[in-house]
Amino acid sequence: MSKESLALVAYGPISRGQWKLQPVTPRPIKPDEVLVRLVASGICRADIHFGDAATEGNSNPGIYYPRILGHEGSGFVEKVGSAVTSVKINDPVIMSIASCGECYNCDDGHPAYCVDGFKHNFIGEKDMYSASNDGNYDIAASFFGQSSFARMAIVKARSIVNVSGLGVTTEELKLLAPLGCGVQTGAGAMTKIADVQPHQDVAILGTGGVGQSAVMAAAMRQCRTIIAIDHTKSRLELAKTLGATHTIDTSDPNIDLVAEVRKITGERGVHVSLDTTGVQKLAKASWEFVRFLGKVLQVGLAKPHDQWDVSMADHMNHGKQIIGCIQGDAIPQNYIREMIGWYKAGKLPVERIANFYPAEEYRRAFQDMEDGKTIKPILVWNDSCQSKI
Amino acid sequence: MSKESLALVAYGPISRGQWKLQPVTPRPIKPDEVLVRLVASGICRADIHFGDAATEGNSNPGIYYPRILGHEGSGFVEKVGSAVTSVKINDPVIMSIASCGECYNCDDGHPAYCVDGFKHNFIGEKDMYSASNDGNYDIAASFFGQSSFARMAIVKARSIVNVSGLGVTTEELKLLAPLGCGVQTGAGAMTKIADVQPHQDVAILGTGGVGQSAVMAAAMRQCRTIIAIDHTKSRLELAKTLGATHTIDTSDPNIDLVAEVRKITGERGVHVSLDTTGVQKLAKASWEFVRFLGKVLQVGLAKPHDQWDVSMADHMNHGKQIIGCIQGDAIPQNYIREMIGWYKAGKLPVERIANFYPAEEYRRAFQDMEDGKTIKPILVWNDSCQSKI
Repeated sequence: MSKESLALVAYGPISRGQWKLQPVTPRPIKPDEVLVRLVASGICRADIHFGDAATEGNSNPGIYYPRILGHEGSGFVEKVGSAVTSVKINDPVIMSIASCGECYNCDDGHPAYCVDGFKHNFIGEKDMYSASNDGNYDIAASFFGQSSFARMAIVKARSIVNVSGLGVTTEELKLLAPLGCGVQTGAGAMTKIADVQPHQDVAILGTGGVGQSAVMAAAMRQCRTIIAIDHTKSRLELAKTLGATHTIDTSDPNIDLVAEVRKITGERGVHVSLDTTGVQKLAKASWEFVRFLGKVLQVGLAKPHDQWDVSMADHMNHGKQIIGCIQGDAIPQNYIREMIGWYKAGKLPVERIANFYPAEEYRRAFQDMEDGKTIKPILVWNDSCQSKI
Repeated sequence: MSKESLALVAYGPISRGQWKLQPVTPRPIKPDEVLVRLVASGICRADIHFGDAATEGNSNPGIYYPRILGHEGSGFVEKVGSAVTSVKINDPVIMSIASCGECYNCDDGHPAYCVDGFKHNFIGEKDMYSASNDGNYDIAASFFGQSSFARMAIVKARSIVNVSGLGVTTEELKLLAPLGCGVQTGAGAMTKIADVQPHQDVAILGTGGVGQSAVMAAAMRQCRTIIAIDHTKSRLELAKTLGATHTIDTSDPNIDLVAEVRKITGERGVHVSLDTTGVQKLAKASWEFVRFLGKVLQVGLAKPHDQWDVSMADHMNHGKQIIGCIQGDAIPQNYIREMIGWYKAGKLPVERIANFYPAEEYRRAFQDMEDGKTIKPILVWNDSCQSKI
């Protein structure tokens, strides 16, 4: 019942050259799974976080090999599990986060905060693919319920977003793969969590995929001031073309970030800040430069021991809010379709941040992201991939 | 043009016996002021904070003498400044916070976060009353724009809330004096900032005037679980009669507060916590025991160096929110009238937390608050006061 596929299998850290694009065979799908014929997979920092760490000395249960990573996939339904009602064969789909569907957070419409989210997204599932085609399925997958660095992927039903009926072409489907994580995270932080308004001033720290998506969403909401902050000039230039009204280049060692933001906003500070860097110093600066009643959103993964060392009294007296956010607190099945509407209307120009790479050139894709050359690399799973390896 | 009054003048810290109830003469009112004939003044912790500190060695510009404190006044309009249009003579009024009316926060409908709030509320104004009746006005006032520990008070127009047309009797007006600060702060945190809902579980740390008001508001909103937390048994008993479904007595040295709250809420934690204590350890516990996406409200004044030492990564992964709040972010002119409606409907039983004291028994009133015997002492300015001194 399996169909031969091609997948990027991580046998160890990518920086040690231990990833391999190779033929694999997925195990037969279960009732709550869908087999998806991928057209594209965006690359996101979490793939590096979990695919470039060594197992030795690592206590994170999400770090292990061999496994297939990738969590921004798009494609067409190849096969439907017996219990799945949300898609039929050949429906175009985008994959997003996994969740249990049974806990109180899932039940309340907050799947990004599934109480078993770590398990479903980061640990995934063992023994799903075989590289030997001998029935020995020893490769783990189901990263974010999808492990979309594969030509043919077993995807959990709750990670599937059916995007049929929206007039999405195959070319568009390739481009829209990152909607499932990075774009949703940045746009959702602005539109859902902060719910930014036209009269508001916002600042976005870090202009990778999440940050640039937040810039686009703030521009779509016609925010009065959109300040993009980064240490890479080319990214800031891109942010300007996406709607940033101001940029601050933190590579300048003399820059006083808090003073700069205050100066831009007439000394008041911004209504909303979004930190996508996870760098404590920057996140704390963002707390400093939000104005009275300002919202300090934090989505960048901080180091385990980093704390919000901010004054309790000042926080109270200024009515500030520190808000942790993941995946824009979105229900992907609704929000991704909404984002596609914005993309179609020219309000979410994802094409401006994306670069395509044939799947076999994955090393170049990762390297370009590391070097800051590409904001959002997307691996394309052409039928030709297989013949090229 | 002045009218002789009686006021509680602080010449130094109250604990040193340096407050004095004495006849005073208010200076003539200015165009933006109202002369109010007080019926009552609630006592709030801020009166002690600013009226029991020594000036020596104190760098807080809000600590100085002689001055008149008090900031939860109610009464009737005696005289109206030429620029004031919101009241006419004999209108019943409740006094609340002061604000400049010109800054961007006032302009945006957030007077509690007035940029000059410290000046208008805590510094007040010099040279407003004379104890010598010789035209030498050397006593400061306008604490919260009102300094309502006086039989006749000069009140800034923006501190005045006209409560005419609501059927408030003189007896009720006495009882409703604390609406202007303590009750607004607790009820506003629940109804406006957290906007608690019937299905939600809430915890309130500290059951003084602010905390008990929060309990009442949570009960009015029919919250599923209302956990009152304090170290004073009698207060917890009172909280139960106001709607607390559970209490936790922190005077028990073996209590594990976080574990207790989790146990009560089926290990999920509460949707909303409100810390009214300002004690860092308790506020941090409240951050621990809110559930995913929980709101951690903080209204108790913390020590200057206390910080929110909470994990950035955990805060993000759990989607928690730390929210500083003052005065329920209310516009008193709207919110106090709304609260009176709730009081009239029996939903905000302020009478359950109040005890009345003739103004001349202020020492007993303060002592009873200190001893935990009275949640909300209210000084009553009967006409007879004057004859008794």
